[in-house]
Amino acid sequence: MPDFDLVIRHGTIATASDVFSGDVGITGGQVVALGRGLGAGARELDATGKLVLPGGIDSHTHIEEPRGGPTVNADSFASGSASAAVGGTTTVIGFARQERGGSIAQGVAEHMARAQQSRIDYGFHMILTDPTPEILAEELPKLVAEGHRSFKIFLTYAGARVTDGQALEVMAAARRLGALVCIHAEHHELIEFHTRALLAAGFTRPKHHAWAKPMVVERECVHRVCAMAEALDVPIQVFHVSGGESAEEIERAQQRGLKVWGETCTQYLVLTADDLDRPGFEGAKYVCSPAPRSRADQAALWEMIRRGVIGNVTSDHAPSRYEGPDGKTAVGLDAPFTQIPNGVPGLAVRMPILFSEGVAKGRIDLPTFVAITATNAAKLFGLHPRKGSIALGCDADIAIWDPAKRVTITQALVQDANDHTPYEGFEVTGWPETTLVRGIAVVQDGRVVGAAGHGRFLPRGPYDLIKPRGVFPGYFNPVDGVAV
Amino acid sequence: MPDFDLVIRHGTIATASDVFSGDVGITGGQVVALGRGLGAGARELDATGKLVLPGGIDSHTHIEEPRGGPTVNADSFASGSASAAVGGTTTVIGFARQERGGSIAQGVAEHMARAQQSRIDYGFHMILTDPTPEILAEELPKLVAEGHRSFKIFLTYAGARVTDGQALEVMAAARRLGALVCIHAEHHELIEFHTRALLAAGFTRPKHHAWAKPMVVERECVHRVCAMAEALDVPIQVFHVSGGESAEEIERAQQRGLKVWGETCTQYLVLTADDLDRPGFEGAKYVCSPAPRSRADQAALWEMIRRGVIGNVTSDHAPSRYEGPDGKTAVGLDAPFTQIPNGVPGLAVRMPILFSEGVAKGRIDLPTFVAITATNAAKLFGLHPRKGSIALGCDADIAIWDPAKRVTITQALVQDANDHTPYEGFEVTGWPETTLVRGIAVVQDGRVVGAAGHGRFLPRGPYDLIKPRGVFPGYFNPVDGVAV
Amino acid sequence: MPDFDLVIRHGTIATASDVFSGDVGITGGQVVALGRGLGAGARELDATGKLVLPGGIDSHTHIEEPRGGPTVNADSFASGSASAAVGGTTTVIGFARQERGGSIAQGVAEHMARAQQSRIDYGFHMILTDPTPEILAEELPKLVAEGHRSFKIFLTYAGARVTDGQALEVMAAARRLGALVCIHAEHHELIEFHTRALLAAGFTRPKHHAWAKPMVVERECVHRVCAMAEALDVPIQVFHVSGGESAEEIERAQQRGLKVWGETCTQYLVLTADDLDRPGFEGAKYVCSPAPRSRADQAALWEMIRRGVIGNVTSDHAPSRYEGPDGKTAVGLDAPFTQIPNGVPGLAVRMPILFSEGVAKGRIDLPTFVAITATNAAKLFGLHPRKGSIALGCDADIAIWDPAKRVTITQALVQDANDHTPYEGFEVTGWPETTLVRGIAVVQDGRVVGAAGHGRFLPRGPYDLIKPRGVFPGYFNPVDGVAV
Amino acid sequence: MPDFDLVIRHGTIATASDVFSGDVGITGGQVVALGRGLGAGARELDATGKLVLPGGIDSHTHIEEPRGGPTVNADSFASGSASAAVGGTTTVIGFARQERGGSIAQGVAEHMARAQQSRIDYGFHMILTDPTPEILAEELPKLVAEGHRSFKIFLTYAGARVTDGQALEVMAAARRLGALVCIHAEHHELIEFHTRALLAAGFTRPKHHAWAKPMVVERECVHRVCAMAEALDVPIQVFHVSGGESAEEIERAQQRGLKVWGETCTQYLVLTADDLDRPGFEGAKYVCSPAPRSRADQAALWEMIRRGVIGNVTSDHAPSRYEGPDGKTAVGLDAPFTQIPNGVPGLAVRMPILFSEGVAKGRIDLPTFVAITATNAAKLFGLHPRKGSIALGCDADIAIWDPAKRVTITQALVQDANDHTPYEGFEVTGWPETTLVRGIAVVQDGRVVGAAGHGRFLPRGPYDLIKPRGVFPGYFNPVDGVAV
Repeated sequence: MPDFDLVIRHGTIATASDVFSGDVGITGGQVVALGRGLGAGARELDATGKLVLPGGIDSHTHIEEPRGGPTVNADSFASGSASAAVGGTTTVIGFARQERGGSIAQGVAEHMARAQQSRIDYGFHMILTDPTPEILAEELPKLVAEGHRSFKIFLTYAGARVTDGQALEVMAAARRLGALVCIHAEHHELIEFHTRALLAAGFTRPKHHAWAKPMVVERECVHRVCAMAEALDVPIQVFHVSGGESAEEIERAQQRGLKVWGETCTQYLVLTADDLDRPGFEGAKYVCSPAPRSRADQAALWEMIRRGVIGNVTSDHAPSRYEGPDGKTAVGLDAPFTQIPNGVPGLAVRMPILFSEGVAKGRIDLPTFVAITATNAAKLFGLHPRKGSIALGCDADIAIWDPAKRVTITQALVQDANDHTPYEGFEVTGWPETTLVRGIAVVQDGRVVGAAGHGRFLPRGPYDLIKPRGVFPGYFNPVDGVAV
Repeated sequence: MPDFDLVIRHGTIATASDVFSGDVGITGGQVVALGRGLGAGARELDATGKLVLPGGIDSHTHIEEPRGGPTVNADSFASGSASAAVGGTTTVIGFARQERGGSIAQGVAEHMARAQQSRIDYGFHMILTDPTPEILAEELPKLVAEGHRSFKIFLTYAGARVTDGQALEVMAAARRLGALVCIHAEHHELIEFHTRALLAAGFTRPKHHAWAKPMVVERECVHRVCAMAEALDVPIQVFHVSGGESAEEIERAQQRGLKVWGETCTQYLVLTADDLDRPGFEGAKYVCSPAPRSRADQAALWEMIRRGVIGNVTSDHAPSRYEGPDGKTAVGLDAPFTQIPNGVPGLAVRMPILFSEGVAKGRIDLPTFVAITATNAAKLFGLHPRKGSIALGCDADIAIWDPAKRVTITQALVQDANDHTPYEGFEVTGWPETTLVRGIAVVQDGRVVGAAGHGRFLPRGPYDLIKPRGVFPGYFNPVDGVAV
Repeated sequence: MPDFDLVIRHGTIATASDVFSGDVGITGGQVVALGRGLGAGARELDATGKLVLPGGIDSHTHIEEPRGGPTVNADSFASGSASAAVGGTTTVIGFARQERGGSIAQGVAEHMARAQQSRIDYGFHMILTDPTPEILAEELPKLVAEGHRSFKIFLTYAGARVTDGQALEVMAAARRLGALVCIHAEHHELIEFHTRALLAAGFTRPKHHAWAKPMVVERECVHRVCAMAEALDVPIQVFHVSGGESAEEIERAQQRGLKVWGETCTQYLVLTADDLDRPGFEGAKYVCSPAPRSRADQAALWEMIRRGVIGNVTSDHAPSRYEGPDGKTAVGLDAPFTQIPNGVPGLAVRMPILFSEGVAKGRIDLPTFVAITATNAAKLFGLHPRKGSIALGCDADIAIWDPAKRVTITQALVQDANDHTPYEGFEVTGWPETTLVRGIAVVQDGRVVGAAGHGRFLPRGPYDLIKPRGVFPGYFNPVDGVAV
Repeated sequence: MPDFDLVIRHGTIATASDVFSGDVGITGGQVVALGRGLGAGARELDATGKLVLPGGIDSHTHIEEPRGGPTVNADSFASGSASAAVGGTTTVIGFARQERGGSIAQGVAEHMARAQQSRIDYGFHMILTDPTPEILAEELPKLVAEGHRSFKIFLTYAGARVTDGQALEVMAAARRLGALVCIHAEHHELIEFHTRALLAAGFTRPKHHAWAKPMVVERECVHRVCAMAEALDVPIQVFHVSGGESAEEIERAQQRGLKVWGETCTQYLVLTADDLDRPGFEGAKYVCSPAPRSRADQAALWEMIRRGVIGNVTSDHAPSRYEGPDGKTAVGLDAPFTQIPNGVPGLAVRMPILFSEGVAKGRIDLPTFVAITATNAAKLFGLHPRKGSIALGCDADIAIWDPAKRVTITQALVQDANDHTPYEGFEVTGWPETTLVRGIAVVQDGRVVGAAGHGRFLPRGPYDLIKPRGVFPGYFNPVDGVAV
């Protein structure tokens, strides 16, 4: 009788702290032993010459998410989770959305139903577009108690944005309930002002999408949300920090002692605004928000990653097909940039690109790679210690990674339901061959083998990291109504 | 026949650059000669042992301004301008206000009529509370052409605030028309959020006014308006910078090369939040916005003045009586701070306090005093070279100053129409004895002798200082609709 | 036959990344298994309710080090290593010293001989006081090849300091040989200038030691050494960063992308300059360099630890007895501060104080505690992965820690050869009960049981972290004599 | 009988504060009247269409200064002062030098003798290369009392540099005597280290001069001298700030409240390191220290001028001929850069280039031009109010400037004794036609008409600007030996 359900042998195992060689013993979907010459497994995987890495956590993904417009998100949970696993990711945090005037409980319920088909584990941030007193007082406490422990708000986008006043209410609810607020931070009116001016001036091409939201638009809003979080003493994560100026605001907030975390995304590390100016309508494939910036911004972001100012990197996967009735071209090849569906896919390529551009090119070391793709997100979103590392008691979410494999990214490879990838032709060194979720292979040697429905919802309880930073003499906290 | 209408003899004359001794020859209301042993004047003033200083320019004053509530501004133009002259100020810039749904042209017309009674010269910033396309396109160009070359917007105050989108429209108009935008920058929703929390918690005393708007509220908004100005490439002045953090944001904007100027006010240099906690209801006398801060903030502001980050100091004179049906106490001695009329008077004391705390105490030198009380405001608001200095061709707006006189400030001394001064009992060294406006004494040896109506409106034409800073490669200016 | 030499059961194991419960299997002095319900060990330790932590690495210690003066370092390797182990530390990096005109090879040889009596593992930084071309070209390459892969230089202290020119030669050697340069950074002439002035003015008490070296003295030198390291592209560690201003310079260097690491010490986190002013001659016990600073500096240092600007905390253990012919009092109770032997002991208390002030008080989490006491030092000094963590293949250097134990620090407790501790009476929560070095208990339940001589020298090979950061276009590296 | 010795009529007169039109009445070498329609002058100059500007003060010039080597400074006082006046400069501050082991009193005496031939007024900084206790205690007090109220020290240059310890002694003397310390701040050993490496690698061309002293070399030393000045509480001026990084250190010092002033020079605003790479040996003409930097540094310096961080601009005139036995080529066209005589001439072109690049191109306004070329230097060096402005009682040092004249700079034009100008061919808009020193034309319509010997020594008494900034609680000043 075998000692373990599964043993991964002879691998080079990495955590956010250490790199060591040995075997991983897995039973009941969990890592139960680390050793050398472990006893037999019912199944065994030989990882000689391979890295054994914590499966990635992509904490910013839009999968099978209604978009409220003529186009729809290209991926189902079955396809999206497959693509994620292809790239070594074993947990996604997506979004359940409240429609204006609607219920977030209903949004969560619907999304929970859709996510049944996920092949990998998942959780949701709750997008609040209409944080009425009722929603905040009645729906949210229940949902947080059920393990939905993060809110998402948009400070821009006509159909989704909240006012600053609403943002404060959401932050206050987060403080009361113990939840983390994630924020899309761009100055709405500045974008609108630029957009009107661009359209009026005939600057309507995909590349003008970037002109509509220059860096100052983002930097302003990053400072603003940090200030609001400071005033209420509420931890936040600023989503998709796209360049140096915004990252600097994150750092200034951290220097004040604030619990402000910054995330960036794959696209801001390897794409630039020039990609939006590709011939024909190709630039449409790169339309996302914030817009990709410059090479200098990429360098600044790597530096901020290295110094820990930016703690994790996500895909902000938001696939729109290029062709077809719901595709980016459906609006017409002469359509102004405002009509082009926003968002780029990236579930599969996130970890390979970060590994290649980061570890293989010497920008970061392997523990840092593990930290920014898995461990830090697990800690920040209350999934640690269950997720995000390879340690006793962790779920056996593991990517077995060939560090030397050279791969040219293609749409065929990423295996999502989209019809293109903006990274087509991008060459990487290093690729995950096999991806396990709770000890079960979802991808084996590059083929998707995991069943739709294998994924489990991950309820998240209270945790230390998002406790308020604490009070200061003479300070009045308006959420608590208490002065110290 | 005399050579001059008036000769001021044997004074120590100061400009923002120089200090020298000699005589000032005045004819036709202008300085026409500087010399030693000038020819005879029809009148002569002996300034032996005295300073002969440019009359002050107080570019931020609320005089005889309708407040839209139960209380009214205590001063008429006759009284306010008298008080200003008592303190050595010879030009005030006040406010003409557009009521929501109303016309700014009408506001200007009404205010121009009221100002007829001014004893000193004047201009107006136009407060825009409802910048509709019609107002911006039809009324403003005419008014700017008539010499009203600055706009004021509030980012807070329920009845006056504009949205960020409206602020951008006002900034755009300023760029098109060549006007300067002055901004009251505090984060409205944060103030509201704090206020609701304070009232709910029973923190309703005058001192809680300061709690309702901690420094972060102002710092946030200063960064925000600087960012908006950056995006549109429009010069702005941030009003009443009250402490170190906000001043630091001003400096960061200047370091980016932006044309952002910062003003502070007398109260932020000598009052603190502790004054709001005076016994009984006395704290109500110190209720103004932003609220006075700490000693450390005062020190920071002096440092910022010394380094030129903050360029001028105003009174933000906004007198509310303490007693009487329109007084601060009219709301009842138990009234929550939200009902206490906002604003402190300060026309008369601005220059004496700055002289005493600045020059006499060695914090700044005399040319810097002249710069921050007169010259810089003149330059910033397009009054230079007519106003703000003692040089050939300047209006003979002059304060003859006894640098050694020790004075205890009292309400009787300031001679405005208010019934109290928050500086009661404050001791200063140095006092203006005689104040001339265009060569005519408005105050003589401390007595108001100038006639109501002596003041003239000062139309302001286009000027260099508020030209946009210029374009940058790859930059799209959304006001012009042009990319470079 | 047992499966392991030793099993530690049921502990809560922590690394710099993770915290998990389980057993640690140890064989041959190494961690060979992590699991739950591991097979039997020849010996077993029950860690129920205890933390199982990587043994600490104290990378800045003066043990049995000749001091060149009338007083001697109080500890032998036998006593010092015992005290370290009492506090959970399992590796010390000490110093081998070159005397002026002498050989560093000889210094190393002598120190290697002395260290034979160590109970815990050890390495040495080589103090270079006289880096002649011969030393640099002939001795150092051999010594580095033997595993002495770090240099220490002093920019102050009459008998030890190198000039800036010599510092550059040492840095250049480090770049060529692949070694890390550690620096005591204080501006020598400023200290001398202050000292002369203090003595002349009769300010000679222990507290005036701090007056002789205000923060600016250190901040200056930190910037200077960072600049020299930048010019030559050489990684450095700045020793004993004592407060906010210096830490800010470290951060600025890191923001430039430099490989500059900062260390602080226990004393700068819990002592202040006021301790130097204790009654009588007690202040002498707190004389160390840099001098302890203020509470605000302590807070700043914690913040810098939290943000990763400062990566590890050491003891700078440098014990001088208080009584006796070689004690601090031997110079006479009226002796000027300049004659008081410098240095405070701290081997035993480093980890307990950091645990108590850091983890127990909520300033940092447990993985951060592991990082700053063990893992980061291991990585920085080339001891990782052998030392600094609990992972497969690591040396079984482990502290079994009672997180709840309340202890009052006394000299009896710390068990070094000194006659006092500056932390006498300091109360901590959490204490290491048992300390293993390569699986052998050196301290068991608080008693020193490890044999003198159990410790091993740790040769250090080349490693990635101290590779130069790389070249930039147009940059000339003067060490390589190559332009890019 | 005329009312004035001289009247300049109908000019546009500028000060650091104001621009106005009128006449200047001059009697006894002083400005005695400013007016319109002034009475008759014995002589009259028509300045219609011209600017009437304060004559420039070039506070950093090397004229007829022994260089201690095979080459000599090309200019005599007769030639140098002529060239200065050609460019509108009416006062130079040069250097009297102490040779190592020698007397500064002797250096001053010799230089005073040489300066007898100056056509314009002058003073001296005293270069201290060997600040022995005798020099500091005996010679300096006398010399300062005679009006030599500034010291110059070099932190680099083999024959001239002082150690940090000596620098502190000089600063202390300055504090005691009331003098300003000017500093050449470059890290000596870094330069030496780079130089040796460059020569060893065969990088010996003129352009490698810049490689020998990259910006970090200067930035380091700027921070260092600011820190030393901070510790002793002594005002300093940092000479020839050459780019952004150093200027940023100046600003940081000012932000701390320190009395640290920064100067830059013409060459750093219009030349770059590329000029050192001109064909053949032409680059030798651009060898000066610090070396010219990049376009980005130029932009940064203009920004720092605009914001007042850098207060004045000098020439650092240090002419070496190109041809001849004492010329730059005398060392041989293959000579390594280390042998090329250092320094560029610039007396004549300083103000025209600043006017053209600054005022004509819109970077600064006219009062700022006056401030950075004349007024600020006058104030900083104790020459104000006698020099540096056009105001009653000022010396009638005046440049009558044609703002529209287009001039191509040539060696013939600059009229110094050098044989080339590094600005040959540089085109400027604006040129001084006539230069008066105390009312006497030294240059008239471009021709030198002033007699050698017209210049006067300018003794400087104590003045406020260089008073220590003041003490702080708990601070020990080591110069005074007093704690507060």
